[in-house]
Order: sequence, then C-alpha cells, then structure tokens
Amino acid sequence: MVASEVRALFAVASRPEVVSLAGGMPNVSALPMGELGEIVQRVVTEEGSTALQYGSAQGDPVLRERICEVMAEEGISAAADDVIVTVGSQQALDLVTRVFVDPGDVVLCEAPTYVTAVNTFAAFQADIRHVAMDDDGVLPEALEEHLTRLAAEGRRAKFFYTIPNFHNPAGVTLTAERRRRVLEVCRRHGLLVLEDNPYGLLRYGGEPVAPLRAEAPDQVIYLGSFSKTLSPGFRIGWALAPSAVRAKLVLAAESAMLSHSAFNQMVVRRYLATHPWRERIKDFNEMYRERRDAMLGALEAMMPAGSSWTRPEGGFFVWATLPEGLDAKAMLPRAVNARVAYVPGTGFYASDEGRRNMRLSFCYPTPEQIREGVRRLVGVIEGETALRDTFGGASAPATRGDDSPFPDLP
Amino acid sequence: MVASEVRALFAVASRPEVVSLAGGMPNVSALPMGELGEIVQRVVTEEGSTALQYGSAQGDPVLRERICEVMAEEGISAAADDVIVTVGSQQALDLVTRVFVDPGDVVLCEAPTYVTAVNTFAAFQADIRHVAMDDDGVLPEALEEHLTRLAAEGRRAKFFYTIPNFHNPAGVTLTAERRRRVLEVCRRHGLLVLEDNPYGLLRYGGEPVAPLRAEAPDQVIYLGSFSKTLSPGFRIGWALAPSAVRAKLVLAAESAMLSHSAFNQMVVRRYLATHPWRERIKDFNEMYRERRDAMLGALEAMMPAGSSWTRPEGGFFVWATLPEGLDAKAMLPRAVNARVAYVPGTGFYASDEGRRNMRLSFCYPTPEQIREGVRRLVGVIEGETALRDTFGGASAPATRGDDSPFPDLP
Repeated sequence: MVASEVRALFAVASRPEVVSLAGGMPNVSALPMGELGEIVQRVVTEEGSTALQYGSAQGDPVLRERICEVMAEEGISAAADDVIVTVGSQQALDLVTRVFVDPGDVVLCEAPTYVTAVNTFAAFQADIRHVAMDDDGVLPEALEEHLTRLAAEGRRAKFFYTIPNFHNPAGVTLTAERRRRVLEVCRRHGLLVLEDNPYGLLRYGGEPVAPLRAEAPDQVIYLGSFSKTLSPGFRIGWALAPSAVRAKLVLAAESAMLSHSAFNQMVVRRYLATHPWRERIKDFNEMYRERRDAMLGALEAMMPAGSSWTRPEGGFFVWATLPEGLDAKAMLPRAVNARVAYVPGTGFYASDEGRRNMRLSFCYPTPEQIREGVRRLVGVIEGETALRDTFGGASAPATRGDDSPFPDLP
Repeated sequence: MVASEVRALFAVASRPEVVSLAGGMPNVSALPMGELGEIVQRVVTEEGSTALQYGSAQGDPVLRERICEVMAEEGISAAADDVIVTVGSQQALDLVTRVFVDPGDVVLCEAPTYVTAVNTFAAFQADIRHVAMDDDGVLPEALEEHLTRLAAEGRRAKFFYTIPNFHNPAGVTLTAERRRRVLEVCRRHGLLVLEDNPYGLLRYGGEPVAPLRAEAPDQVIYLGSFSKTLSPGFRIGWALAPSAVRAKLVLAAESAMLSHSAFNQMVVRRYLATHPWRERIKDFNEMYRERRDAMLGALEAMMPAGSSWTRPEGGFFVWATLPEGLDAKAMLPRAVNARVAYVPGTGFYASDEGRRNMRLSFCYPTPEQIREGVRRLVGVIEGETALRDTFGGASAPATRGDDSPFPDLP
C-alpha cells in the first residue's frame, strides 16, 4: 500500500461504524473525571509556583518515591534516586537506545514485538534481530543461540528488549521458570535486559510473576508507565536503571527536553497520594477482564478451523493466526470495508514475518462491540478462505516495507 | 571544579539568602492561578475523554491553529499543517539535530550561545563553530567567512543556529538590516537557518523586528515556546518548518515520545481561546521592564571601570564583561560566598572563551533583590580587582571542560 492508500484506509477505519480492534488506547472514560478535575485544579491553585515552573531533568523527587511504591506492588525494591521520569515509556525507550546504540549495533527483541520500539531502534540504525517466542514467552534457548552466533561473529548485542507480561502484540506472559533461564543466559553473556512492563498490574487471571528486575537489579533497565493504569494524557512513564546508566539517561533527558512537565508530575503524585489507586486498578481489571472474555468467547465460538490465537491473562491484546494461505495485511482493506479493523502482524517485525497474523485489541471497544467486531472479522476470513479454496490463493501478497496502516498506539 | 564542588556550590547558591542572577526561570507567580486552575479543571471534566487519551505525534490541530495566531503577532504567516508541537522548544532543537546532524557535521552558532543547545548539538557529535557577534547581533561577514572557509575545505554546515531577539545569554537583538544580510549569505550558501525565538514577544523598548522566518519561509526552521509567555510547566513549544522537513520531524517526534500530552495542549489552547493573553503579556512586559531597568540602573551606578555590559530591549538577560585579568568562573565561589550567583560566560561556548564574561538574569528576582545582588557582585569584583592589582592575577584560572555550575534553565 502506498501512503495515500494508507491514509484513505485510516480515514475509513476511523468512522464510528467501524469496530476498531486495532488501537491500544486504554478506556479512559472509566476514569474518575470529577476527582481528577479537582486534583489538577488544586495543583495549580495550591502549588502553582512550583508546578508551573521548570522542573529537574530526572523528575520530581516525590513522584519518584511514589513510583517506587507502584513498582513494589509487583515485587520490585528500588530507590527513588535510580528512577528517571520520562514522557511515557516511549521516551525511556528512546533515551536508552540513544545512550546504548550506535549505528549497526545489534539489538535483540522478541518475535513479534512492540512496533514503536522497533521504529526507535531502527531510527538509531540498530541491527534488529528477533528471538522466537511461544505461548510461554521468549525461548531462552533461542536467545542463547543468537548470542552464541553473535559471539562467533565477534559481535555483541547491546541489549535484549522484552515485554514479559501480557506481551504487545503477542498477549503471552513469560513464565517464572523461563524468566530465571533468560536472566541466566543474559548473565552468562553479559547482556543487559530492557524490560518493558506497561501492563503488569492489569492482570485478569492466573498468578502474578515477579518482573525480571526484581530478580536481577544490576542486569535490567526496567520501564514503567501510568498510561494504562491512570491515563496516557499526562505522558508519565519512567525508567529504573542501575545508577551508572541512570546518570547517562538523565543527561540524555536534559538534552532531549530540558525537563518533563512539573505540573503533570505533581498531578500524578497527588493522584497517587489522595486517590485509592489500587482499588481503581481493580475496577479497571474487572472492566478489561469482561472485554477479554468477550473477545476470547467470540473467537472460540466463531473462528474457522485452521486459525489460532493466544489467551492473555492480562493486558490489552490477543495475537491471532489465520488459516494457511491467508494474508492479514492484504485482507485489511476488505475487513475495513466490512467495518472491522485490526493491526496486521507484519507491523510487529523488522523482518518479513507475521503475514498470517493480526493483533486484536480488546481494551477500547465494549464487550458487545467486540463480539460484533469478531463476527464481522470472521465473515471476512471465511470469504478469504473460500477464495483461497477456489483459486489457491486469496490475496495478492502484500509488499513489506511501508508500515502498518494503523498508528500502533501502544 | 570537580563534580562534588559543583554540587556543594549549587547547594549553597540555592539558599534563600543568596540572590540568584543565574537562572532563567520566568516569574510564574505573576500568572492568573485562579483562572488557570479553572481551565485545567474544565479540560478534564468537559473534554477528559480526549485530553486524557493519546494524541497525535504532530500535536493538537486546534492548538496548532492558535500557535499560528501567536506567531502572526510577530509577523509570521504560517499554516497549522507546518507546525509540530514539542516538549518545550528544547525538544524541537533535539528533533532538528537528530534529523539533520550526523557525527562530525558542522553546526554554526553564535558566540556565545544558549548552553543547552550546544549540549544537544554535542550529544549528536556535531562540530560546533561559533560566529562572532557584537551589540547588533551576529556579524554577517563573520558568517560568510565561516562558510567560505568550510567550502574551501570541501565541507558544508548543516544549519546556522541563531537567537535573534534578546539573545540568551548575550541580551542583544539582531538588527533588521543584519537580518537581511544574514538571510542573503545563507541563501547564497544554501544554508538552513534554525531560528530560536522564545522571548520575541517580551519586548520592553525599541521597535519590533520581524523574525527571519517572516522574510524567508523556505530557508528557516522556526522555534517558539509558551515557556516565557505563559508557563514552562506545561512544556509546550513548537517548530515551524518547511513541509518536507516537518514530515521528518513528526516521525522523529513519534520515535522520541509517541505523542506529547493531549491534556497540556488542550489546556494551552483553552487559555489562548478564553484568556486575554495579549493583555497578559503586556502585564508581564511591565513587570520585566521594571526588573531590567533595575539591573541596568544598578550596573550603571556601581560597576567599576573596565567592565561593560549589554542593554537588552527585551528578554531575560544581560551579558557582562569583567575588567581585564578577571575570571568569572574562578570568581564564582567567592560570589556565592558573598550571597550572589550568576552563570559564568565559559558555559556558553563550545570553545575556551567567555572567561571574562557572566550572564546576569533579571527575570526572577524582584527589583530590590536585583539591586542588592548587583551591589554584592560589585563588591566581589572590586575585591578581585584589588587582588589583581596587588598580585598581577586575581584568581587561579579556572579549568575548562566541566560544565557551568548552574543548570542553565533557559
């Protein structure tokens, strides 16, 4: 698809009659708007002379203390001094890449992986290599193979980027046993881990698994975010890093933006201090669990033979695989025409993979919309399958190279 | 000075009894806090589902329209489509550098120049060259000389970074005649201009001069900011760029942070739509004019022979030159001991210049504090001069290399 086609498709997909299973936007309409309105007002009227002034490049010290309490919920023990506040965890990804990656350096990441991370690694001209996953997350032996092969070439990777919980887009969670093995492999090869955990607290089933950072503070740069547990509108994320790295990240942040908004940081810190945020996350989890169940139920009831999908215990995404011979990217215009949208799998690889895959988000639409969206999607898949059976190939293969037609808001 | 000394000095300089002529923080206590409190509240309660969601990488379209109206105040005619909203103009500087500069590329800037811009250029390993200025701003013939020399070396500069109005730190304004000549030189050499204009609307005397961008839309990337005319706390700046460049900046912004805060952008756009912001800037200008006059009056009355300083028609800064044989950086610990702080001139050069210079800010302290600060400063200078006269050299020369001991908040 060329850019003008992408724009046209996106314009159609944005219409209200289209059920979008594409975006990764949290359902912010569930936020306590009245209370938040009062919080933002009070930050201005009671603390305006600080909130409306420049802040520090590392971020508000009180917020950094609160962030440590948030991370403690998942078993991380950390000092506020090792936290740096960023413009969403996207900026943290950018700063880490800026500090570590020179053109041609190898970065390892899962297959598939978060598309905007790939874009950032690519912007710094990294050599991106994908490590295979299954339903239990990344395969430690595949990681080891990559590292052994690199060593044989006389090369080293700069870091291994992983989303261990409720993976975007794969929907899977790295098991506790695999986490130990991943850390062991990385330790043996002296490889830094970049752990991205925006969804960790959004668990709807199963047992929590401690972050990699909890087990190996010196081996891991950990990224967190309030975008899913509060709101992406404040753009507050963070990195927790070993102190030598953290100092470099602070310098990079100063160069990148001088300082983040003191106002936004004070809003989030006041919310955390005055609002029962743990209870609020429980409410969100009830809401998202219902949506996940709607999607899994609809897929189970309707998807044709030959297709498969992951069963996330949290987060926002299901990763589906179409019957053989189908191409999710080529199929997308027909899906949008049938008033349902998704992100084709090819967008989540730096390589030419993911043709049979699609990411289905259940975070934003209502359960009813989700069921209707899956119904429409299945209709399109069945049409494609019939074409495939008649002509031996349903769609002209999509050309790889340009990007996913939907901005992959996390 | 080593890092621990810098920290100790900074800790002392932050004490309330020290008059700081160092920082470039606007006087946000003059803001209409009650009204701003209401605005932020209403953005949440009336528009929360948009304001607390992800936004677009280029920025809020309505805010971009308003930004065009702000720029029109200074004579710029622009389309909202060519504006990109950034985390302060610092992020715009960073994105432009990221898009244009490869390691070793030449960047031209004034001598002295804004320290955090130099840091950003240096972060991308630019070869930074300073172009001489006088009281009328940069010297077009000096710019031409640089370009001719580079051409003779078979090299080209990537852009010329300039702060034409109320320069930080020099306090001078590029005259209209010089602007024409600078643009003519740049056009002839095919050189892009990066025009940084955070203070343009803060004029306390003299006649406005049109921005370079107003005269040459295709030659100039223009940077603006609400940090001085409203508040740095929202971190809203922007770049206005020819459309081919703008498209690249949007991609870089997406990689850097996904999107800026929709909430902050909607706050600023509501302020611009509902508040008499032009009147408010007039009030600010009254306040800052009084502070500037207090500083110039005190310098005139007290500074010893052999010293000189610039007379800004707007902005926040005076650039002072000490009597021969004195070293502003070496003198700083004694100044802080005498309860007055400033930024030594060496911080504003990538080269080893500025030893006799200091930047004096009049934006944040009251007129009375400014007069007292200058009184203390003059006492220190006189002590140094006496030492110089007795021993032939007042201070051990400061070693260049580490940074200015004060964070140069714009």
